Amino acid sequence: MAKVIAMYKTPTDAAAFDRYYFGTHVPIAKKIPGLRHYEVTRGPIHSYDGSAPYHLIATLTFDSMAAVHAALGSPEGQATANDLAHFATGGAEIYFSDTRSV
Amino acid sequence: MAKVIAMYKTPTDAAAFDRYYFGTHVPIAKKIPGLRHYEVTRGPIHSYDGSAPYHLIATLTFDSMAAVHAALGSPEGQATANDLAHFATGGAEIYFSDTRSV
Repeated sequence: MAKVIAMYKTPTDAAAFDRYYFGTHVPIAKKIPGLRHYEVTRGPIHSYDGSAPYHLIATLTFDSMAAVHAALGSPEGQATANDLAHFATGGAEIYFSDTRSV
Repeated sequence: MAKVIAMYKTPTDAAAFDRYYFGTHVPIAKKIPGLRHYEVTRGPIHSYDGSAPYHLIATLTFDSMAAVHAALGSPEGQATANDLAHFATGGAEIYFSDTRSV
């Protein structure tokens, strides 16, 4: 499998972020071809030091890195990326990698 | 479910990191009570900007945040945390949160 991890830093208005994210962004992202699973953190994100600088972490699962690259390059993937500007007011870090169970 | 995400920044010696991580750390971490699934990135971690500052991201799945807190407080969880000093030469960020599918 391969994963795309989207880490959203604390936005200026968390309630507005959540409304837009779940009401608009998730439906856009779920149209990405090859998306097998879409998981998000629920509630606060903790770290060993206490609070984390992130408001929400989303993990999108695909079959392979080839599928990730195809997804990111698709019109639906581009629409998802372009939508970030509408709500990710704290910034976002997007990572992707092949994964395996150990 | 709930997840612990361990993000390891690029270490001083990647080959030594991998040897220790897979040969010693994973067997220690797999003893953590309540651990349901253990997944790691394989190969390079990419970002939209190109390379990412992380060498490896591990995601450990538990039934709930209560299980995560019990795991982190257990002797096996403490042994896993104490082991980081032996290989995480680039530093590590550990986040944990409740999760759900969307």
